[in-house]
Amino acid sequence: MLKLIEGNAIIGQSGGPTAVINQSLVGVVEGLRGLKPIKKVLGMRHGVTGLMKNLPCVDLSGTPWEVLEKVAKTPSAALGSSRDKPKEEDCGRIFDACKAQDVRYFFYIGGNDSSDTCRIVSELARKHNYEMRCFHVPKTIDNDLMCNDHTPGFGSAARYVALAFMADDRDNASLPGIKINVVMGRNAGFLTAASAMARHNEGDGPHLIYLPEVAFDPDRFVEDVKAVVAKHNRCQIAVSEGIKDKEGRDIGAMLIQGAQTDSHGNAQLSGSGALGDMLSNLIKEKFKSPTGKSPRVRADTLGYLQRCWPESSPIDAAEARSVGVFAGQAAARGEMEGSVSIMRLSNHPYRIEKRLIPLRDVAAKTKVMPVEFIHGTHDVTRAFLEYCKPLVGELPHFAHF
Amino acid sequence: MLKLIEGNAIIGQSGGPTAVINQSLVGVVEGLRGLKPIKKVLGMRHGVTGLMKNLPCVDLSGTPWEVLEKVAKTPSAALGSSRDKPKEEDCGRIFDACKAQDVRYFFYIGGNDSSDTCRIVSELARKHNYEMRCFHVPKTIDNDLMCNDHTPGFGSAARYVALAFMADDRDNASLPGIKINVVMGRNAGFLTAASAMARHNEGDGPHLIYLPEVAFDPDRFVEDVKAVVAKHNRCQIAVSEGIKDKEGRDIGAMLIQGAQTDSHGNAQLSGSGALGDMLSNLIKEKFKSPTGKSPRVRADTLGYLQRCWPESSPIDAAEARSVGVFAGQAAARGEMEGSVSIMRLSNHPYRIEKRLIPLRDVAAKTKVMPVEFIHGTHDVTRAFLEYCKPLVGELPHFAHF
Repeated sequence: MLKLIEGNAIIGQSGGPTAVINQSLVGVVEGLRGLKPIKKVLGMRHGVTGLMKNLPCVDLSGTPWEVLEKVAKTPSAALGSSRDKPKEEDCGRIFDACKAQDVRYFFYIGGNDSSDTCRIVSELARKHNYEMRCFHVPKTIDNDLMCNDHTPGFGSAARYVALAFMADDRDNASLPGIKINVVMGRNAGFLTAASAMARHNEGDGPHLIYLPEVAFDPDRFVEDVKAVVAKHNRCQIAVSEGIKDKEGRDIGAMLIQGAQTDSHGNAQLSGSGALGDMLSNLIKEKFKSPTGKSPRVRADTLGYLQRCWPESSPIDAAEARSVGVFAGQAAARGEMEGSVSIMRLSNHPYRIEKRLIPLRDVAAKTKVMPVEFIHGTHDVTRAFLEYCKPLVGELPHFAHF
Repeated sequence: MLKLIEGNAIIGQSGGPTAVINQSLVGVVEGLRGLKPIKKVLGMRHGVTGLMKNLPCVDLSGTPWEVLEKVAKTPSAALGSSRDKPKEEDCGRIFDACKAQDVRYFFYIGGNDSSDTCRIVSELARKHNYEMRCFHVPKTIDNDLMCNDHTPGFGSAARYVALAFMADDRDNASLPGIKINVVMGRNAGFLTAASAMARHNEGDGPHLIYLPEVAFDPDRFVEDVKAVVAKHNRCQIAVSEGIKDKEGRDIGAMLIQGAQTDSHGNAQLSGSGALGDMLSNLIKEKFKSPTGKSPRVRADTLGYLQRCWPESSPIDAAEARSVGVFAGQAAARGEMEGSVSIMRLSNHPYRIEKRLIPLRDVAAKTKVMPVEFIHGTHDVTRAFLEYCKPLVGELPHFAHF
């Protein structure tokens, strides 16, 4: 047991928000409660951006517990988020802000880019001989963190995607046609794969699932759709916004007019219907009859609601809280730094365990769908469904005639 | 009390489905239960299209009640829907199908195009001296039926839109930028207006609401956004897919490559991100700084989930059921034909009454937002909020710091 250094703690939220990221925020506060050496728990406004800009912090330890519980149930980052990657020259301002507020414990809730920010802050603190214990709390709907069975935020997004495909499949069955739904996920196809959770009965969609892990071939796509339409007289399709051509280039980013790029170098994929519309036009064109008539083709891009829909997966909400608590408790028992990771112990019953792992093991790395989760060129395996099932929570069962 | 004619009843679902249209279906069955002169209650597959194609019907009166209750809770048209408008020459086949199954009661659940189909079927039956009592049961997320305070299906769609804007507004607040959300609605802005239900605290979005009832001016739009960004450093915008230019042309339909048209002459507006992307590009272009940098701009098109999201508004589900029951009971008491309409008796407490009105009063007509619901060029009035509030049901309250 290492000695606890006296001072304040600060918590930041970073990257794309999730429906349960505030559970983790409140979890950290919970994990630090009643800890004598830590006087105050502060909340950064907009992550490190707020520190760099000297935005006043939120006094979390001074916030009534019932308010925090309401915050926990509110989707998206209540403190504000940030996509900034601090450069060497920015760090002076970050430490000045931390020193000025006597911050010795730094918690950063985020995905792989954010864990990299946490690692940078930690290394620079050491370099500047400023003792600050840095902890990364995992969050991402993309589910793409290394050394994690899954990531808080994914379950709720996956639940939204599963419900969306279930409901939209009934819509498509009632007015048959070809329906494309574009799902979030830059390099990892987990969220797109979660659409498969929508299948309950023979013939249910999605009939085709295109992941960023499998090179997308437009000709094969058209043939795939033709085969499904021949069988079911309709076709519901899940397409990841991150699908890549055989050269590995993002097809979506190339289609977005004036696509914007963040400081981590990620080109805009979301917030545009361009990919869905291109695929829809492709199908309309290739399915044209000799008289020029094409079947009913529609494309929806599920958009930002995937990461902020307020009805979260109960297990995801509970786990998001628990990783925050775990990070707070790790600091409380004298750990110097690390990232909280989730390991799965068993599926039946579903049980997980949390560990503290080195920051460098997760920082700026991306986990993609393992091969055992991918079936052929346009589907997922039973192993993926087994994996995903406990994370989304119970789904309704729809009746067919 | 008119004499009841002996024979079977048939029920069809038509037009764009809703989250609660199956409640109305089961409602009609409920309203007809135990009625001696009516032997069987049948379900048309895909509305009149199924009759024209001689698709076998579903035996609804022979379906166990617990199955029907599950169907009622399933979104989208369980019998299948149709967008076909029967022509004079099609009607022979429709009557042949009805006669062959001894159908004397015809129920059609749908919007204004579908009520027109119901009127056509009713008139042609009379012309062909075939006694068939025709009833229209209202449904539409657009809320655009004449002689109705509101329409079953709208409340659930409005609830989804309100929740979507609430959640997306928190997302936008955490990573500030300009966010455009395109909402369904061809000529009537009710559903787009429902986005205003998302506002609970000062500064909450949507900050701008563009309805199809107010001619859309791109220059004024850019100025509106600039003013909101100057005040809030971000802007969340609700835009109807049905916005029109000053000549009254659908802006969205002009942008969709190969836009498809249904048999009622409606050009495709949904199932494409083209309108949102155009507005997003306009903002990116007009907000460019001298260095060529533009603010973060994203557009989502809420899409088909608006009409099929499985978590319906409880009051809407109950009303959808009750209009079906009312139609069945109207037939049971010997009414010859009509459309069920909803009148609001009071707001506090919320009370409605149902009436049977002539088919021609609703058929193929469109109600739009009354002037007292529209505030200026980009907002709704308090009167609209009062009107909409009971329909969406209770909304969660999000906490801000």
